[in-house]
Amino acid sequence: MPSEPDPKTTSDPNSGVNKLPRPAVGRLSLYFRELHRLADQGETHLNSKQLGALVDVSPAVVRRDLSSLGTIGRRGVGYPIDKLTEQIGAVLGSGLQWQVILVGVGSLGDALLRYRGFERLGFRLVAAFDLDPAKIGKQIGGVSIWNAATMTGKLAELSPDLAILAVPVDQAAFVAADLVAAGVSGILNFAPTTLRLPGSTAVVNVDLASELQRLAFSVQNR
Amino acid sequence: MPSEPDPKTTSDPNSGVNKLPRPAVGRLSLYFRELHRLADQGETHLNSKQLGALVDVSPAVVRRDLSSLGTIGRRGVGYPIDKLTEQIGAVLGSGLQWQVILVGVGSLGDALLRYRGFERLGFRLVAAFDLDPAKIGKQIGGVSIWNAATMTGKLAELSPDLAILAVPVDQAAFVAADLVAAGVSGILNFAPTTLRLPGSTAVVNVDLASELQRLAFSVQNR
Repeated sequence: MPSEPDPKTTSDPNSGVNKLPRPAVGRLSLYFRELHRLADQGETHLNSKQLGALVDVSPAVVRRDLSSLGTIGRRGVGYPIDKLTEQIGAVLGSGLQWQVILVGVGSLGDALLRYRGFERLGFRLVAAFDLDPAKIGKQIGGVSIWNAATMTGKLAELSPDLAILAVPVDQAAFVAADLVAAGVSGILNFAPTTLRLPGSTAVVNVDLASELQRLAFSVQNR
Repeated sequence: MPSEPDPKTTSDPNSGVNKLPRPAVGRLSLYFRELHRLADQGETHLNSKQLGALVDVSPAVVRRDLSSLGTIGRRGVGYPIDKLTEQIGAVLGSGLQWQVILVGVGSLGDALLRYRGFERLGFRLVAAFDLDPAKIGKQIGGVSIWNAATMTGKLAELSPDLAILAVPVDQAAFVAADLVAAGVSGILNFAPTTLRLPGSTAVVNVDLASELQRLAFSVQNR
């Protein structure tokens, strides 16, 4: 588990939320993103209709999701943005500092190292690994690239919480096994294969071609 | 709508499938990927337990999804891989040729242009657009980069079916409006904002930071 820099914002989330269905977690993450943006714009309150419009879900779904956190909006005033941000952040673990490594610095890995959206959510990329001698020793987005052949030793030193896997599909299972052995708690997998890992390791699979197929399906069926 | 190069494989999908819930569409896409891989390995049949194990869903869910396509496995034999691939492909539109453009050739756009997983699913990247003079006129992954300032004229010439949006968040809504005006049927949006488009345009939003938050949530709650 990651370190807890600030006990106040990382207080144990409400019991019950750990059974949230996957779509609800995805929505909380989107609410969180929009609430941050509104706070940056100086807004202090919003209602379920406004929040729903921002992420394209109905006000009723917003109210149900937020009441599962124990938060109820006040009629005519709505939800206080600061409190709601803190509550959702606690559920999503954004008050924690997650140490993240990336394996596979191809074009997608390169893009992920340059991506600026992770840091402010508490995800710090601490190292990247690749086998290409032309990349080893370089830095991308401020992150050093290490030799993937010596990854195990480096992981023992860093003990990262999470790993992002951006290797070719035929290497994904092997690298994932090394990451599990090194004690990584979760893997975000971009290789187009479904990783099957022991129950102690969480995995989220993102298949970019599959997302394009979902889009094509909805174009065909509207 | 895209062109239909081969009427045989693009025959109208079974009625009823157009009401498939979103998770089911995602699963069909994963089944399709695994079936292709098995066919490449010379396999001819598989059962719901085997297919479920490959994509980490229960055999019962596999059977329900496939029976919604009108396909029932035979006891002791399972499903014929070729027929199943054809049926799922028809539902997902993979027998069609989709003309796709990409807007925003930053590091993520660059990675998407180099990504080799789209073409074999029927998605052909026909043009990319950016405002950076250093990129305009270049090719990445065989795709020419055009001046985004003259995108409207080029879109009228190409009339693409789908667009991939990989622009900064503050430009996403403006570019999306141009794409809708140009008659694009669907947008795959990587900018971290939920696009709200007229009902005639489909949209799938992919937020990379949100996926990492989903992973962190499941690590915290297992």
